[in-house]
Amino acid sequence: MIVLLRDKKFRFLDTTLRDGEQTPGVSLSPADKVEIATALSDIGVHVIEAGSAVASEGEREAIRLIAQAGLSAECCTYVRALPQDIDCAADAGADSVHLVVPVSDLHIERKMQKTREQVFSMAMNAVEYAKERGLIVELSGEDASRADMEFLRSLYAAGIEHGADRLCFCDTVGVLTPEATAEIIPPLCLAPLSIHCHNDLGLALANTLAALKAGASCCHVTVNGLGERAGNTPLEEVVMALEHLYKVDTGIETRKIYPLSTLVSRLTGVPFATNKPIVGTMAFTHESGIHAHGLFRDSRTYEPIAPELVGRTRRIVLGKHSGSASVKAALTELGYSPNPRQLEEMVKRIKALGDEGRRVTDTDVMAIADAVMLLECRPVISLKQYTVVSGTNVIPTASVTMQVNGKEVTGAATGDGPVDAALRVLQQSVAVAGDIRLEEYHVDAVTGGTDAMVEVTVKLRKDGQTITSRGARTDIIQASVEAVITGMNRLLREYHEKRSTNTD
Amino acid sequence: MIVLLRDKKFRFLDTTLRDGEQTPGVSLSPADKVEIATALSDIGVHVIEAGSAVASEGEREAIRLIAQAGLSAECCTYVRALPQDIDCAADAGADSVHLVVPVSDLHIERKMQKTREQVFSMAMNAVEYAKERGLIVELSGEDASRADMEFLRSLYAAGIEHGADRLCFCDTVGVLTPEATAEIIPPLCLAPLSIHCHNDLGLALANTLAALKAGASCCHVTVNGLGERAGNTPLEEVVMALEHLYKVDTGIETRKIYPLSTLVSRLTGVPFATNKPIVGTMAFTHESGIHAHGLFRDSRTYEPIAPELVGRTRRIVLGKHSGSASVKAALTELGYSPNPRQLEEMVKRIKALGDEGRRVTDTDVMAIADAVMLLECRPVISLKQYTVVSGTNVIPTASVTMQVNGKEVTGAATGDGPVDAALRVLQQSVAVAGDIRLEEYHVDAVTGGTDAMVEVTVKLRKDGQTITSRGARTDIIQASVEAVITGMNRLLREYHEKRSTNTD
Repeated sequence: MIVLLRDKKFRFLDTTLRDGEQTPGVSLSPADKVEIATALSDIGVHVIEAGSAVASEGEREAIRLIAQAGLSAECCTYVRALPQDIDCAADAGADSVHLVVPVSDLHIERKMQKTREQVFSMAMNAVEYAKERGLIVELSGEDASRADMEFLRSLYAAGIEHGADRLCFCDTVGVLTPEATAEIIPPLCLAPLSIHCHNDLGLALANTLAALKAGASCCHVTVNGLGERAGNTPLEEVVMALEHLYKVDTGIETRKIYPLSTLVSRLTGVPFATNKPIVGTMAFTHESGIHAHGLFRDSRTYEPIAPELVGRTRRIVLGKHSGSASVKAALTELGYSPNPRQLEEMVKRIKALGDEGRRVTDTDVMAIADAVMLLECRPVISLKQYTVVSGTNVIPTASVTMQVNGKEVTGAATGDGPVDAALRVLQQSVAVAGDIRLEEYHVDAVTGGTDAMVEVTVKLRKDGQTITSRGARTDIIQASVEAVITGMNRLLREYHEKRSTNTD
Repeated sequence: MIVLLRDKKFRFLDTTLRDGEQTPGVSLSPADKVEIATALSDIGVHVIEAGSAVASEGEREAIRLIAQAGLSAECCTYVRALPQDIDCAADAGADSVHLVVPVSDLHIERKMQKTREQVFSMAMNAVEYAKERGLIVELSGEDASRADMEFLRSLYAAGIEHGADRLCFCDTVGVLTPEATAEIIPPLCLAPLSIHCHNDLGLALANTLAALKAGASCCHVTVNGLGERAGNTPLEEVVMALEHLYKVDTGIETRKIYPLSTLVSRLTGVPFATNKPIVGTMAFTHESGIHAHGLFRDSRTYEPIAPELVGRTRRIVLGKHSGSASVKAALTELGYSPNPRQLEEMVKRIKALGDEGRRVTDTDVMAIADAVMLLECRPVISLKQYTVVSGTNVIPTASVTMQVNGKEVTGAATGDGPVDAALRVLQQSVAVAGDIRLEEYHVDAVTGGTDAMVEVTVKLRKDGQTITSRGARTDIIQASVEAVITGMNRLLREYHEKRSTNTD
C-alpha cells in the first residue's frame, strides 16, 4: 500500500479562508485574509480557496487583493451554480471556481426544493458560463457521500463534456468511512478529482488518505482543521501523515507548519485544542516520569516525529507524574545542584503539589528547592500595600508601597485599566533594584460567577533570564500583583542562590 | 465490511483516569476519580483503568475507593513488570492489571537499557506473580507498533501459557496506519486482544476501528481523547462511529456522552476544542446562511446525527455568514416581527457587524432591530459614574450613580474583588426597576500584555427571560459594567418592544 502512495504527487487546496472562515464567530478582514493567503502560498499549498465573492463586499475585496498579490498559488473562489456568483468571482479576478452543486436527493429535494434534472441542467449551464468567463472549473458534488452514485457519475461525466477541468467529492457531513471511500472513489476519477472531508465523526483525515490512495489527486484542507461544526481535514495532519507514515514527498515546507497554525489561530481567534495533533500546546510536551526518563535517553521513545520538523520545540513540564530525571533537568536550568537525597525529597514535594491539582511553575520549584536545600529565603521585595482606583471619570490609578532591599519605596502610576496600572507601578518601583520587564501576561478564561478563582500566569525577564510565576485569587488585580511580586523576588535573588547552591 | 462489524460485541476499556490523567497539568483528587468512574460505569464502559497504584498515595486511595464503589465495570490498574507494582495493585483491591512491557528494541535498549531476553523473563515472572495475587492479567506490549512482530507474538504466546487472560497492543507514539493495522493485528489475536492507540498523527480513531475489524475485541479509550501529547482514542468518537457508520450496537448509552464529557472537562480543567467531533461547542452549532437555511427545512442536510442522540441540542448563531432564515428565527425568539424589507436590512447589518470580526450577541441583534424598525430606543438605565477601589488594606468597594426610569440612584457595595463589587452594586441599584440576576459571567482568556482587549460575556435573567450581552475594553471592570448595563437595559425594555413590533 505504502509503495502505491510513495511515488504520487498530490495537490493541496486550502479552504481555511472559505470553509474555515465559516466557523461560527470567525470573521477575517481582507488584510487578515491576504496575510494568511501569503503564508499558505509560501508553505507550498497549490490552490487557495479565498472566499465566496457573492457573499459580501469584504469577501470580494479580499479575493481581489489575493488574486493580485502575485502569489504562486492559484486563487479559487466558492460559487453556487448561479450566473451572479460566477460573475462576482470573475470580476474579482479569481483564477478558478469551486462550483458546488448539491447532489444527494436530501439536499436537492429538501434544501433546494428542486429535481435532479433541474439541478443537473443548472450545473451544466454554470460550467459553460464559468468557462466563457475564462475560469478554471472544479465541479463539486455537495453531500456526495449520501448521493446516488450513478447520478453523481453522470453529472461528473457531463460536466467534463461541458468543459469542467476538475471534479470534487464532498463528504459534507462527514459520514464516509475509509472502506466506503476505497469503493466509491475509483469509478469517479473521470478527471483530476479532489476529496473534501468533514470531521463530524472524527474520520476526516483517514477518509482523505483513503481517497488519495483510491485515485483522488488533490485534497481540500484547512489549517488547524478549522471549519463549521467539527471542522475540515487539517492541513498539518494530512501533510505529516503522508510524509511520515506513507513516505510521500508532499512538497509542503513542514517547518513552516507551526508558524502558519499560530497565525491562523491568532487572526481567527479560534484556539486549537491543547492536545491537537502536531500543533497543540501539549503535542510535544511531556510530564510523566517514565516518558521524560525515556526522552532524556532517546527522544524517539515518546515522540513519533521530532518537533523541529514542524517548527516547534520540546517542552518538559513538572507535575504529579514527574520523575527525578525531569525535576533534575529543571533545577539545573534554574541554577540548583541538589544531591541525590535532596533531589528525592524535591521530587516528592513537587508530586504532592501536583497531587493537589496545582500547575507547577518555576517559582514553585524554586521555593521547594530553597526549603529542601535549607537556603535562606530572604525576599528582596516585600509588599506593604497597594491601592487601585478606577471608574468612569477616573483614570485607572495604582499606588504601591514596598520594601526593596530594606528601603521603603512608594510610587504611583496610571494605566489602560486597573491591572495595567498596578503592574506598571510595581515595575516602576522595583527599578531601583533591577530592570524587570513583563514579557507575557496570561489570564485563564473565567467561567461561573464573578467570585470564581482567577488564575494569572506571568513571564518576567531580567538581564536575559526569564521566569514564570503564578497568582490565584478571586480578585484579578490581587492575583496579578501576587504573580509579579513572587516572580520579581526570584529574579532578584538569583545571585544569592547561585552562590549558596554550591555549599551542599 | 460493514456486515463483519455489525454482529460483533466489543468491550471498552476507559483509561481517562490513567492515560488521560497523565496529561501535563492534570491532577484528579480521589473524590474526582470516583465521580468520573461512576459516570463511566453508568454509561456502560466495561473496564476502568483507575490509575497506577505504585505512583502515589493519592492514586492508591482512588483505586481503593473505585474498587469498593460497587460499580458494574471492572477496576483495572496500570502496572510495570515489577512485583512492587503488582503488590500495590492487589493491595488496593483492583480486579485486574494492565501489565505494560516495552517490546520495541528502541524502548528495550534505549529506555530500559536491557535485552529482549531480560524483558521477556521479567514479563513472565510478572504475569505469574499477578495471577498468584488473584488478578486478571492483560499483558500489554508498549510501543508494539515499532516492535519486531515475531518477538511480540512469542511474548504474547508465552504470556498466555503463563496465565495471562488478555493481550493488548499499544501504538505508543501513534504511528500505525489503518493499512498496517489490518495486516499486523490478525496473527496477534491469540487471546482476547485490546487495541490502545495514540493520536499523534491524527489516526487514533481510524486505527482503532481498523484493529476491531481485524480481530481485536476491546478498545482502550479516554473521554474527550484526553492523554499525553495529542491524546488517546476518544471514547465518544469510537462509539458514535461504530454506532452510526458501522451499525454496531456498542451497548454504550450515547445520550450520556455529553454530560460525561463536560464532567471530565470540568474536573480535569482541560477544555475540549470548540470543533471537537461530537462534544465540541461548535459540533452542533450553525452560522452560515446556506447551512442554517437547509437545517430549518431538514436538519439532516447539515447534521450527520441528531444532537439529542449524544445528549446535546442544536444551536444557531448569527454572524457574517448568516442568512435571512436564521436571523428571522432569532428575531422571533426575541419578540420582533419584521416585514420582509426590514428583515433584509437587518441581515445586511448583522453581516456587516460580523464582517468587522464581532461576535453577535442578543443585545446586538436587538439594537439592530430597533434601529431598522424605527423603534424608540429609550434606555431605562443610564450610567452616570462608577468608581472602584481595591487593594491590600482595602475591602474591594464600588459605588455607582445611575438614572433608573428617570430617577437618580446612588449605591455602594463590597465584593470578593473589584469586578464582583461593581456588578453587585449594579444589581442592587437596578432593583427598583426589576430583579435581575447574573446567571453567567465569562471572560475570554487574555494573552499578550495587560493592555490587551478583554472580552466579557454575561447572561442575565429577569422573570424567566435570559439575555446574553457583551463588553469589550482594555479594562476588565469597564468591560464587565458595559456588558451588564447593556443587558439590563434590554431586559427592562422588553415590554415596550413587544407592543411596538406589531405596528409594522
